[in-house]
Amino acid sequence: MTYNFNAGPAMLPKEVMEIAKNEFLDYQNSGISVMEMSHRGVHFDEVIKTAESDLRKLLNISDNYSVIFYSGGATLQFSAVPMNLLLENEKADYVLTGVWAKKSFEEAKKLGYKVRGILDQKENNYTVIPEIKKSDIEEGIKYLYITSNNTLYGSRYKNFPDHGIPLVADMTSELLSREININSFACIFAGAQKNIGPSGLSILIIKNSYLNKQTKPIPVLLDYSLMAKNKSLYNTPPTFSVYIAKLVFEWCLKKGGVGELEKLNEEKANLLYSFLDKSEFYFAPVEKNSRSSMNVVFLLKNNSLEKNFLEEAELAGLHGLAGHRDVGGFRASIYNAMPKEGIESLINFLEDFKKKNS
Amino acid sequence: MTYNFNAGPAMLPKEVMEIAKNEFLDYQNSGISVMEMSHRGVHFDEVIKTAESDLRKLLNISDNYSVIFYSGGATLQFSAVPMNLLLENEKADYVLTGVWAKKSFEEAKKLGYKVRGILDQKENNYTVIPEIKKSDIEEGIKYLYITSNNTLYGSRYKNFPDHGIPLVADMTSELLSREININSFACIFAGAQKNIGPSGLSILIIKNSYLNKQTKPIPVLLDYSLMAKNKSLYNTPPTFSVYIAKLVFEWCLKKGGVGELEKLNEEKANLLYSFLDKSEFYFAPVEKNSRSSMNVVFLLKNNSLEKNFLEEAELAGLHGLAGHRDVGGFRASIYNAMPKEGIESLINFLEDFKKKNS
Repeated sequence: MTYNFNAGPAMLPKEVMEIAKNEFLDYQNSGISVMEMSHRGVHFDEVIKTAESDLRKLLNISDNYSVIFYSGGATLQFSAVPMNLLLENEKADYVLTGVWAKKSFEEAKKLGYKVRGILDQKENNYTVIPEIKKSDIEEGIKYLYITSNNTLYGSRYKNFPDHGIPLVADMTSELLSREININSFACIFAGAQKNIGPSGLSILIIKNSYLNKQTKPIPVLLDYSLMAKNKSLYNTPPTFSVYIAKLVFEWCLKKGGVGELEKLNEEKANLLYSFLDKSEFYFAPVEKNSRSSMNVVFLLKNNSLEKNFLEEAELAGLHGLAGHRDVGGFRASIYNAMPKEGIESLINFLEDFKKKNS
Repeated sequence: MTYNFNAGPAMLPKEVMEIAKNEFLDYQNSGISVMEMSHRGVHFDEVIKTAESDLRKLLNISDNYSVIFYSGGATLQFSAVPMNLLLENEKADYVLTGVWAKKSFEEAKKLGYKVRGILDQKENNYTVIPEIKKSDIEEGIKYLYITSNNTLYGSRYKNFPDHGIPLVADMTSELLSREININSFACIFAGAQKNIGPSGLSILIIKNSYLNKQTKPIPVLLDYSLMAKNKSLYNTPPTFSVYIAKLVFEWCLKKGGVGELEKLNEEKANLLYSFLDKSEFYFAPVEKNSRSSMNVVFLLKNNSLEKNFLEEAELAGLHGLAGHRDVGGFRASIYNAMPKEGIESLINFLEDFKKKNS
């Protein structure tokens, strides 16, 4: 048995991949693949409408929000968010809990928007999600920007800031893994390649009251109002990726929904963190209250064994455990699709490796 | 036997789809799908490098050009082209041979660039590709923009304008279907969903001398210089789509390359146009010199039979023949992947339908 701990593109549910393989050449007796169908035909129409309505069910998204299936990843939204949301002279604060938040902040600044980076956690090596006090935030800002889960460092907001200021959140590595109250957010976006589907697709959830306000020209495909009005079909969407996302949403519903997935995710993550915390051989550097349930970062106390560790893990069928090149060490990405057995296999391997090397 | 005449997303080569299905769950004994692999791992590294080098072979692209695999379709490039290519006070002319050229022109204009739309063919219902005289073009422009093949109207440039002015071409519906001299072009882009792969991917070929010149800020993912520098890996590319493109490029090489595909495409298109021109029941509205080899538009002389025609074609296994909603009539999209047998089946059906209805 092998397990795929890649941070993204990441493993998808086995059941989803099997359905996709079985109907790869012939979707519902149409004689052709979903990939070869018109995005304006009856089959794809049903695919995208089902995907949207299932996502709305899973996250309890009201009609006050639009759901858009976007080509491209989260980085495209780093530009689009301020272009759409910041009107003349409006401001925003960005909480700098990691490299993606920083990139998003720098993009908004580069494009000439009035944004501030706050509470930079660089001195903590991004191992802490800071408490955000009302006094940290500039008065009158349009939105407070957060990266809800930091894939690289394995940290996340246990609770979201709650000062009555609309949040904009990059939820790439945790959308669908935990329950959220959509109504706290002006806008949420997420690249698909963690919990949702193939890379090259992202999901945007935007409160309708923010649409149709911008008067400055926006590059056509970055224009949320236009995309929402055309229900993701202004141009050809990434049809096959939307189809995979639809299968994933159906799988999530079958698993009992986001609440049930969250319980399972907490259980999986706790299993691994408890093991690491008890160990004198490994350790988890992220502050306990800031730990991600999706990306578990850990290190060896003796880091000269890192290369050996990765080689032996590969041989044991545990793939993708290398930490991000900016961070080093190890990272087990354990998204919705990772079964509990994967964590147990990893812990067994960690035990064995320790015995052999201590 | 069924044939898929969709304009795009369109049929892909059967051999490609079968390979993709066979390795869908397990790519080269890795135990996981290409879709689930890191874009920075050894497997995908080989996929994207092979894709690029095969595309360079197929189109004879020199090292003076960068090749970029882009998330999203051609519409994204409507914004990116002027943002990257037009420096302070520089100008461009757009030849208005159809709706996509017009959209691209309007986008550049909306974003504040100094562009002119020329030779608008609206009065001909876009059935003609005009001859472009030197005097039609404003002196000193940076580029002349063309849509090389008009998917909607079934028209194309038989020869490209040759006045020593760098061309920018949207080749979405014909890249890889005919030989081109890359050196005439400042930049070529193409959405993948016709001759290349799934929707949500596009290919950009840009002359390096146009990179690193722009001083105005560009939204990060629209920045050609940054994308070229990072070899399509600044952010996560649409990995599975790049993989399908790679398989398609390999298929093109096996077929003998673009020159051989072009011969076959001309043969296929001529077969169909000859039939239509001889017919007193159907007709092809596009001027003979302007006819596309990829999208064959045709009409019934008695258009009251249109609905019947489409219903009976579907029953006969000939899918996707409805004309674009802006044009009406019929359209047979016969990209590289359409075998000659598909055209013969279509002609047989056209004969039968005529006999039954005349």
